[in-house]
Amino acid sequence: MNAPLNAPVTVSILGLGEMGRALAAALLGAGHAVTVWNRTPGRAAQLVESGAVEAPSAGAALDSSELVIVCLFDHDSVHETLDPLVDRLRGRVLLNLTTTSPEQARELGRWADAAGVAALDGGIMAVPSMIGGPGSEILYSGDQNSFERYRHVFDRWGISSYFGADPGLASLYDIALLSGMYVMFAGYMQGAALVATAGVSATAFAERSAAWLSAMSGELVGYGRVIDGGDYTVAGQQSLDFSDLSKMLEAAAEAGVGAEPLAMVQSLIARQRDAGRGAEGFARIFESVRHADSVAGSGGGERQTTVDGSAAAA
Amino acid sequence: MNAPLNAPVTVSILGLGEMGRALAAALLGAGHAVTVWNRTPGRAAQLVESGAVEAPSAGAALDSSELVIVCLFDHDSVHETLDPLVDRLRGRVLLNLTTTSPEQARELGRWADAAGVAALDGGIMAVPSMIGGPGSEILYSGDQNSFERYRHVFDRWGISSYFGADPGLASLYDIALLSGMYVMFAGYMQGAALVATAGVSATAFAERSAAWLSAMSGELVGYGRVIDGGDYTVAGQQSLDFSDLSKMLEAAAEAGVGAEPLAMVQSLIARQRDAGRGAEGFARIFESVRHADSVAGSGGGERQTTVDGSAAAA
Repeated sequence: MNAPLNAPVTVSILGLGEMGRALAAALLGAGHAVTVWNRTPGRAAQLVESGAVEAPSAGAALDSSELVIVCLFDHDSVHETLDPLVDRLRGRVLLNLTTTSPEQARELGRWADAAGVAALDGGIMAVPSMIGGPGSEILYSGDQNSFERYRHVFDRWGISSYFGADPGLASLYDIALLSGMYVMFAGYMQGAALVATAGVSATAFAERSAAWLSAMSGELVGYGRVIDGGDYTVAGQQSLDFSDLSKMLEAAAEAGVGAEPLAMVQSLIARQRDAGRGAEGFARIFESVRHADSVAGSGGGERQTTVDGSAAAA
Repeated sequence: MNAPLNAPVTVSILGLGEMGRALAAALLGAGHAVTVWNRTPGRAAQLVESGAVEAPSAGAALDSSELVIVCLFDHDSVHETLDPLVDRLRGRVLLNLTTTSPEQARELGRWADAAGVAALDGGIMAVPSMIGGPGSEILYSGDQNSFERYRHVFDRWGISSYFGADPGLASLYDIALLSGMYVMFAGYMQGAALVATAGVSATAFAERSAAWLSAMSGELVGYGRVIDGGDYTVAGQQSLDFSDLSKMLEAAAEAGVGAEPLAMVQSLIARQRDAGRGAEGFARIFESVRHADSVAGSGGGERQTTVDGSAAAA
């Protein structure tokens, strides 16, 4: 069945937490036929008032729609809810917006494949209040045909970005981008703590930092090219030896503030210098992060990564 | 003596490393009368060709100009060069662009004060090739009258920003901004290592990261306001409990990549949650950084470990 582009679709949303309700409300606003269900009742009143149908059971919710969206507590909740209903899911498209790990998204992808269900996994880069407004973005991976077919539905929530057939990609990108964000925030705290010792307000420093970090984010593509090229000795780079942060760490100690964010970077640099790579470019700290065996906090051994095998990334 | 605005001035530059030469070249291009000196000869040829005068001694360089700029190897070099000449410096304006710590800048400020020399300290936020071009900025602190008097000279190098009379401010801001930058770069590496496990290129991830981090840097002012307000319980914040990064750390372990940048943030979060502050806002991680005694890598205090129990960045 080929629905005309932008046609209203039948869509069921399972899970009416704050995010599920925001997603449902946005689709109601776009004129789609929305059915909703939540394990514990009492969450649907406002949506029903806006035109949604509350299904009496998860199975009934599945039966009502061509597009089934789950936004539940965790990966286990998804299986608990869908496993008994797998036969009723067949022929429909499943979009999982539950927060899961890349491996969990892949597991659900295999489960859906085995059941003959076309499935997408999504990572929501927004808080519920942002859904449908500027700055909201949802990352998708999994079945590309389904993405293209329902993209006009998804676009109502924010920018829709598709990454590739590997169902784990959206979650992986989500975690990767959030990692960068949290680490950047910690870096700002490091700077704010330093300037606070001279009476500079955190707000004044934030304004300057935001402009500075935005400008410096322009350096990332250069690092990416060096990493992808696999040769950290290419000319024009700042060397790891030159990037030694000892003086900055000493200044933090002198100022009497902590230095955990900065010490983390120094540790990544030191690992490469200790391995005799000090004359190579700063981008080489990537090698300190990619190898779990040299890093606190994760197990595992050596791994190979295909630098040129970009699966997607529009 | 009040020179007309934008009038050429006599300026001496002591120290002809790559940066000193770039600074001198830019001032020659602006029509100033530039005298140069370097401890070891042979660095001035090109500048002399462009119109600079090479002084036979540091003292002669001082005698030649109203504005004396030092851009030497380190703080000790500045004293070694200027201490014997302090009488010949009196009545001139000293700008120290040597990379020094805030405490060293303050010490030099006291030294200049005692000698009756008006002094500025500067932090250069650019590499030599950027001097005089877009994106170049120099941070200043110290004697405000001198900054205003010679600002038209300094503006030739890039944006000139003045921070206050405390001579340590420029260096402190310099270190604070660079800290934020290096930590942000490490955060990008964390993300790039994660997506690399699915074959995504570091370049593709860099493009997306740059846009994402620029957008997210807009959050910093909000954190700054909370920090300055001193009340981490104000409404509308993401709590520290909600910011728990365990699932992201597990995903990194599952993917077989290191997690040192992310574990650093989790450690800052954990310290506040352990202290019973989990319901308060994320901005509270500032308190984990500002107190040196709770952080690895800085002098004096108890050594903290990361969330997984291993020693943090050394």
